[in-house]
Amino acid sequence: MDRMPYSSKLLTIILPRRAGELLQSLRKDRPRVHAVTNQAAQVFTANLLLAAGAIPSLTFAADEVASFTHHSNALLVNLGTLDGERKRAIHIAIKAARDKNIPWVLDPVFIDASPIRREVALELMASGPDAVRCNGAEFASLSDDQPPSAENVAAFAARHNLIVALSGATDIASDGKRLVQIANGHPLMGLTTAMGCAATALIAAFSTLTADKLEAAAAALLISGVAGEIAAEKAEGPGSFPAHFLDALYCLTPQTIAERARIS
Amino acid sequence: MDRMPYSSKLLTIILPRRAGELLQSLRKDRPRVHAVTNQAAQVFTANLLLAAGAIPSLTFAADEVASFTHHSNALLVNLGTLDGERKRAIHIAIKAARDKNIPWVLDPVFIDASPIRREVALELMASGPDAVRCNGAEFASLSDDQPPSAENVAAFAARHNLIVALSGATDIASDGKRLVQIANGHPLMGLTTAMGCAATALIAAFSTLTADKLEAAAAALLISGVAGEIAAEKAEGPGSFPAHFLDALYCLTPQTIAERARIS
Amino acid sequence: MDRMPYSSKLLTIILPRRAGELLQSLRKDRPRVHAVTNQAAQVFTANLLLAAGAIPSLTFAADEVASFTHHSNALLVNLGTLDGERKRAIHIAIKAARDKNIPWVLDPVFIDASPIRREVALELMASGPDAVRCNGAEFASLSDDQPPSAENVAAFAARHNLIVALSGATDIASDGKRLVQIANGHPLMGLTTAMGCAATALIAAFSTLTADKLEAAAAALLISGVAGEIAAEKAEGPGSFPAHFLDALYCLTPQTIAERARIS
Repeated sequence: MDRMPYSSKLLTIILPRRAGELLQSLRKDRPRVHAVTNQAAQVFTANLLLAAGAIPSLTFAADEVASFTHHSNALLVNLGTLDGERKRAIHIAIKAARDKNIPWVLDPVFIDASPIRREVALELMASGPDAVRCNGAEFASLSDDQPPSAENVAAFAARHNLIVALSGATDIASDGKRLVQIANGHPLMGLTTAMGCAATALIAAFSTLTADKLEAAAAALLISGVAGEIAAEKAEGPGSFPAHFLDALYCLTPQTIAERARIS
Repeated sequence: MDRMPYSSKLLTIILPRRAGELLQSLRKDRPRVHAVTNQAAQVFTANLLLAAGAIPSLTFAADEVASFTHHSNALLVNLGTLDGERKRAIHIAIKAARDKNIPWVLDPVFIDASPIRREVALELMASGPDAVRCNGAEFASLSDDQPPSAENVAAFAARHNLIVALSGATDIASDGKRLVQIANGHPLMGLTTAMGCAATALIAAFSTLTADKLEAAAAALLISGVAGEIAAEKAEGPGSFPAHFLDALYCLTPQTIAERARIS
Repeated sequence: MDRMPYSSKLLTIILPRRAGELLQSLRKDRPRVHAVTNQAAQVFTANLLLAAGAIPSLTFAADEVASFTHHSNALLVNLGTLDGERKRAIHIAIKAARDKNIPWVLDPVFIDASPIRREVALELMASGPDAVRCNGAEFASLSDDQPPSAENVAAFAARHNLIVALSGATDIASDGKRLVQIANGHPLMGLTTAMGCAATALIAAFSTLTADKLEAAAAALLISGVAGEIAAEKAEGPGSFPAHFLDALYCLTPQTIAERARIS
């Protein structure tokens, strides 16, 4: 990533401290996050937002989602279990968010498994999400089969003028100009359904706290990864892991984040 | 609450013992509770009813909800994630419950965030729920912006001829003539999604056990609060809290309820 | 069961070892299982499949469920919370599975509580599921009120040319020619919503691993029962039980399965 400007390095340096500051702000400000998310992600997403300090709401009913979105400080749109009512609600919620300049984050779950869902994702990309959170397969599907390398992520973020937050063994976050890589996390995170969806919710929550949306996304990925590591040290398997994850997130201190951060 | 009659004092005195007796009855009778509830509350509601001793069912499909309601001893109607099919099912389920004199309980989740949902709640109030369980913001929305004071709760209960169970730092339950306040509970209960919805399910279950619906609602709030306190003593955060809550509810003895009750 | 042929005895003898081998295969092959399942079962089903080694997907949207099914190695159809879109998706998913010879398993949840749901189940039986997993009340409802005895289960399996996996204090699995009874398990399994649904998901996952579908179903029931016993030894109630169940499944060794198996 030699082509990245100095500001990338700066973010790398300040992120371990900034993430802690943003988490403290989140706990103090208690922003509202409306999540139109899939049926398997709703409970964990809501509980993660509560554990982090935010206030979640979850309706996907077409006739009330605009009110809930206007009532919120950020919007999360997750494309899992994309039934008809959810699809209608997504379009209404995004319009409501744009009308009020509420930041919104897209999670194109499993678009690699369904051409129709992929089309929806591509259409929503045109509505200008502030950030996209995805895994490698979803990134490839979104970007005409490009492998999820740091270079490709940065180029995609620049082309679409948004933040890309890519989950993987090493997470990548870029705004097209700057890029950070976060090596925190644990394989058990991949054995909890909706863990990725919940990380997207954290990005939405953090995006309410700072004008620098890359800093917000990177802080959310870092905090999620650190909580995952702490949870893995305590869990006896993927069953007890999610509860430990939420406990770790709730108890996380700025000092622990700074000590554990593995940023490059 | 000086205007409350002697019967309020009597309920205050006998509730710590009666709650334990009702819980024992619940474990023995195993009533069926049908819950038309929001997507984020279904699992926790079902598991809470099972832990308490009841048998839950959850369908919200318009063409089968009447059968399930008739198959049940109580009905819970929760207005969260109020999509079209759920809305249709709610009307059918309430009619089915009224046709068979099955008690039903309303939980007007988040009506303060959506005018359309509030209208549905007001319409359902006309169908004569046996009880309404809500928080302060929902009570205000339901009662033309009255603050959730004990006086206002009692007056609202009297006017609508139902039980009001108001969750808060101190819970309030009233049938319009009598009123009890329950100081049990713990702040972690507010960090578990669907904890309030689940308390409503417990009210529905208890309403099958006694003709005194205020006693039933107050017992459910007390037991929920006591289980919350025990869980908070064991939990390391909001992640591990729900499992401890269900374990505590399952293991709760009449003696523990009586010892911990803080009623006034 | 004296009329059962020798092969029943053979399966009884080899099952404790074969179940461990199949679990190891599952962890290595990581088959994809698509589950059209009820709203209360989605999270636990997905997390159970992940803990076992499979890769779950969950959409019930009519326009994308065929893609997801074709993307998978097995299909699970669960009739809980049977709303309109789910009902449409089920028919499309089964057709997609049959077109590609993907095994599919039926879970006729609570058909004893709804004549309409029972009709759907009977109609789906005509589409040739590879296996049906049910409890005693559901078996009776499916088989014109026959009690769920070993003889009736075997006869039903023979008549419909499929595997029946019957959950109960003692589980029964039969392909109509052979029959095994599995005495593993624990009553706490009945106090976790979706535990039965999740066992069906495990049958679907195992059905991708061997041509002997009875062996697959029996292995899934055995492993589920053994994990339930281990979890019950560690849990403090039904709240902590599900996490221990998934941890036990994730950590289960072939040796533990063989040691604990109670097959007849």
